[in-house]
Amino acid sequence: MAMKIYDWPTGPYPARIRIALAEKAQRSRVQFVSVDLWKGEHKTPEFLAKNYSGTLPVLELDDGTFIAECTAITEYLDALDGAPTLTGRTPREKGLIHMMSKRAELELLDAISVYFHHATPGLGPDVEIYQNAEWGFRQRDKALKGMHYFDGILKTQPFVAGEVFSMADITVIGGLIFAGLVELPVPAECEALQAWYARMQERPSVKNRVTMSEPAEASV
Amino acid sequence: MAMKIYDWPTGPYPARIRIALAEKAQRSRVQFVSVDLWKGEHKTPEFLAKNYSGTLPVLELDDGTFIAECTAITEYLDALDGAPTLTGRTPREKGLIHMMSKRAELELLDAISVYFHHATPGLGPDVEIYQNAEWGFRQRDKALKGMHYFDGILKTQPFVAGEVFSMADITVIGGLIFAGLVELPVPAECEALQAWYARMQERPSVKNRVTMSEPAEASV
Repeated sequence: MAMKIYDWPTGPYPARIRIALAEKAQRSRVQFVSVDLWKGEHKTPEFLAKNYSGTLPVLELDDGTFIAECTAITEYLDALDGAPTLTGRTPREKGLIHMMSKRAELELLDAISVYFHHATPGLGPDVEIYQNAEWGFRQRDKALKGMHYFDGILKTQPFVAGEVFSMADITVIGGLIFAGLVELPVPAECEALQAWYARMQERPSVKNRVTMSEPAEASV
Repeated sequence: MAMKIYDWPTGPYPARIRIALAEKAQRSRVQFVSVDLWKGEHKTPEFLAKNYSGTLPVLELDDGTFIAECTAITEYLDALDGAPTLTGRTPREKGLIHMMSKRAELELLDAISVYFHHATPGLGPDVEIYQNAEWGFRQRDKALKGMHYFDGILKTQPFVAGEVFSMADITVIGGLIFAGLVELPVPAECEALQAWYARMQERPSVKNRVTMSEPAEASV
């Protein structure tokens, strides 16, 4: 009867939904199903039938409906209890959170993902069947510029979309998790971004995201 | 006292917000400000201060807040009257609409945009200061594959995210508007997509999107 989440525990995009689940206290409602990125299990016909775009994570509802894309899954989870805290309550909050989350994808998280898949060995030759290294390096540079942009934002406000923690913070966290995996550190001069990230890593939802799918916790 | 929308009347992304505005009957609340894409006005420091990513459209609220990104602007506009019709009412609707709209960006609209800016003359040599033609052609092929995907969806249901018109339809419309501009026609075998698009083009919100910013209508 539980919802299922297809993901890979250490993946930066899966992290976004693991964090959202913990922030919404909905961990006990889902069962995790592991899809091995390193074996390319997200590119098999079976998985593509669940998500045409071949990306993780994917949420499967009780009725068999699949919901892919982190923003869509977060919208779903945040609306479940009728009290949205991650995606905004007022029109202005919704607009700003969606803008900053999309910007965090464009200018940071997705850019690093393209760098990883195109200008590094990525998931290995069996999975990365086409690479465009020049494009990948451009995206790496875009992500470094993006870090400076978010640093500027966090100099003026405590969270990415304003005064409260939101989906936009989660997306930037996803970006910095990916940056860590590809060894693209936050530049030293981005002090506000570094300080914010240190605070974010203290949140239980962020700190415990990888271990939350382990069997010992699944019985909670 | 009106909101402002910075856009370019024939642009495919601006079309998404013009359609949303008409669907929500909010045309009279906004003033259009033209930003000339062909002169690269969306890449000037003045405009980048409004939208870091340098894209159109951008909404400016009465209090001077800027909201960029079509999904974010649509969330704002749809929430204004307390009766969302474009972005979903239930958690499941919200999830499916956001998923399909994002998929329409990834697999169609954004792919065609990259093709236009990288593998065609795009907005001309003064604006397109870096091009990666190989990447652009890959994205064109992705968009053609995306058309077949959405054709399959529209064989089984009347609208992109299910039984009702939504933001997801608007995003696919944006994709097909862009496809028309770059002369990438919907393949003949995609009959369901073609039939759906013919129906969409009859909607007043779609049909009148370009002329809606003309002075004669501004007094409505």
